[in-house]
Amino acid sequence: MSLATPAPSPTPAAPVFATPVDLPKPPGLTWRVQSREPVGYDVHVVRGLLDPANPALARACGADGQTPTRCLVVVDDKVHTLYGDRVRAYLDAWRVESFWKVLPGDEAAKELESAVEVTEAMTAMGLLRRTEKIVAIGGGVVLDVAGFAASLYRRGVPYVRVPTTLLGQIDAGIGVKTGVNHGTHKNRLGTYYAPETALMDPEFLATVEPRHIVNGLAEIIKMALVKDATLFGLLEATVTGAGPQSLAAGGPVATEVISRSIAGMLDELEPNLWEQVLERSVDYGHTFSPSLELRADPPLLHGEAVAVDMAICVALAHHRGLLSAEDADRALRLMHTAGLPLTHPVFTTDLLEEALRDAVKHRDGLQRMPLTDGIGRVRFVNDLTRDELDRARAFVRQRAGALGTAEDAKDTDLLAVAS
Amino acid sequence: MSLATPAPSPTPAAPVFATPVDLPKPPGLTWRVQSREPVGYDVHVVRGLLDPANPALARACGADGQTPTRCLVVVDDKVHTLYGDRVRAYLDAWRVESFWKVLPGDEAAKELESAVEVTEAMTAMGLLRRTEKIVAIGGGVVLDVAGFAASLYRRGVPYVRVPTTLLGQIDAGIGVKTGVNHGTHKNRLGTYYAPETALMDPEFLATVEPRHIVNGLAEIIKMALVKDATLFGLLEATVTGAGPQSLAAGGPVATEVISRSIAGMLDELEPNLWEQVLERSVDYGHTFSPSLELRADPPLLHGEAVAVDMAICVALAHHRGLLSAEDADRALRLMHTAGLPLTHPVFTTDLLEEALRDAVKHRDGLQRMPLTDGIGRVRFVNDLTRDELDRARAFVRQRAGALGTAEDAKDTDLLAVAS
Repeated sequence: MSLATPAPSPTPAAPVFATPVDLPKPPGLTWRVQSREPVGYDVHVVRGLLDPANPALARACGADGQTPTRCLVVVDDKVHTLYGDRVRAYLDAWRVESFWKVLPGDEAAKELESAVEVTEAMTAMGLLRRTEKIVAIGGGVVLDVAGFAASLYRRGVPYVRVPTTLLGQIDAGIGVKTGVNHGTHKNRLGTYYAPETALMDPEFLATVEPRHIVNGLAEIIKMALVKDATLFGLLEATVTGAGPQSLAAGGPVATEVISRSIAGMLDELEPNLWEQVLERSVDYGHTFSPSLELRADPPLLHGEAVAVDMAICVALAHHRGLLSAEDADRALRLMHTAGLPLTHPVFTTDLLEEALRDAVKHRDGLQRMPLTDGIGRVRFVNDLTRDELDRARAFVRQRAGALGTAEDAKDTDLLAVAS
Repeated sequence: MSLATPAPSPTPAAPVFATPVDLPKPPGLTWRVQSREPVGYDVHVVRGLLDPANPALARACGADGQTPTRCLVVVDDKVHTLYGDRVRAYLDAWRVESFWKVLPGDEAAKELESAVEVTEAMTAMGLLRRTEKIVAIGGGVVLDVAGFAASLYRRGVPYVRVPTTLLGQIDAGIGVKTGVNHGTHKNRLGTYYAPETALMDPEFLATVEPRHIVNGLAEIIKMALVKDATLFGLLEATVTGAGPQSLAAGGPVATEVISRSIAGMLDELEPNLWEQVLERSVDYGHTFSPSLELRADPPLLHGEAVAVDMAICVALAHHRGLLSAEDADRALRLMHTAGLPLTHPVFTTDLLEEALRDAVKHRDGLQRMPLTDGIGRVRFVNDLTRDELDRARAFVRQRAGALGTAEDAKDTDLLAVAS
């Protein structure tokens, strides 16, 4: 803190406040308050989280198996059905008394009222705000709602994130964003609020629907395109085998893919946790996709919309000479082989232009559009034109036609995207 | 970020994900994310804030008088009635298009729904989240609600605080706390969220009711007791003259008192903005008072309850030899002379004990009770007993009886507390 203008010297002899002013009125006094809030958390990939022999979750709850402690478990109904008993047995074994809040896991439950209900569950159990944890286990909705509630309750209580979906484990579950939808707006209300610990257990992926695995693959492919050519190569060689069982089994390739995705994401997030820098590589594929997610009927999953957006970006980079024809082809082929859509009928050039205008608003007046600069590198451009968008669309449609429909693409335990 | 366990080396040749595991299962991969969020804001005491010749408020809104800009003004109904036209004229003069949200200023309006309505006003005007400001003008309720709304809207938009009460200008308006009541709990939901600027104009105090001036004096006396013996002496010499008009007139004594209060408060807040340290001098007088505020009927103002709590603390310090009989007497006399109550019938020893137990819970298991160690210094104790509380109560009742009722105390433009 610095006092820009010194206060006048003490005048204790002045008899009353309203004494006639014999000092010049001060021009104003200004203090500058400056501080830095330390934020730190662990992201831990660990197998067998619900095995009582594994201490990872207990430690995250502050339990040692001797001293009784308590926590509030927030889960979605699907996780509750599939894993509720095991979670309860695990916590019992570690002498953690668990209180429970079960939420619907669908997007409609991602609303303020759900977060308020979670805080009311904290009040009902008399949560000790510094020591007892909130443990959120589930998909993106539960993590976002429970994290939001944890950030608001008495100005913040510690929480633990256990994402159970692929998207959650490599993307949504490892940053510090929380939030709910409000009115017609996605994530209109929210906070930046770090968990104490994020625990990723691939075994949860065994019960994820194949379409939701593909949904997560889109963000993994994004990470490969913008910053990890090795990951890209690995995906090219193996993506046809990526399904719920193979990812849950956790062979060396699955481990490598997931750990590279997390490492890449954290590398981008850590220096910019509060998004003060608006040029973000991780926004790749997230310029046009919000408009698509809003309009697609039947609805698309997030990763599916991101894939359609990324296909446009691949074409844009290619036309600017930033991506060879061969690499553009590899990128589109990888998405297609993973089971992701490359095109969508609502993506007219008008809509692309409108979406870009919206992005400019969110990015404080500039396009700040991430494009691949070769596979595994990114650069930002601010001068995309309608004509380029138009050409990119045409390019993707032509290439997608040549690759065939998504249904033909995958050959193992993956269901096709459009069933 | 640090990768505790290195990822296994790439194995791009592996044909599928679920290949039989020929590498040992990793024991788990852990990354540690660490960062520090920079927070900075200005606290500015400035007269004539609504005079179009004064650029302070315009600057805080990012206006230069040339380029048109916009803001959302959030006020309570009283401020709207008294100052709405002047605020609007001021902003018009600086080419700031103002949108308005008027809230009731009473404690009942300090609820989540009010904050949500403020965010809906932001949505309705299409607030540009990085450049257009929320300007909250009013008492504690409006500042807390508008600050909370600003912290939630799209994970945070900039806001400006203009406290119009004495309590707001020297205490509630200069920190980073926001929040609303929920259920039967005060400030149950909230955030730590710094304004960009806090602007204190003493001229607003002219329209504050005398009882609310006394309310603010309680926090000024607190600051004097815990860290500023000079301020204490100044108050002893002048407090009988402290009323709405004299404070608004802004003579040298008023300026000195207010600037010392703010400086003291910021000195305590700045190193502990997020209250990670639980031993807080500014908690002086805030151990027993929450229970009193909750139970007093007719209700007490915050500062009144704090004064009754401080009187107990003065006695506790005296009985421990931390405050001479003379200084204890000076402290009680100053509060009394300011027009503050020293006792309240609901303060039984049982209630004091219960309140202390609640405080221990909030302070993570220890009393961490600030007591004056001579006037202007503080120390923390953790071993207060019921017997001490009992003796302290008796001491205060005896001294308060000797000083007479609050009605007799003040002699100028102040109305008595209990009218």
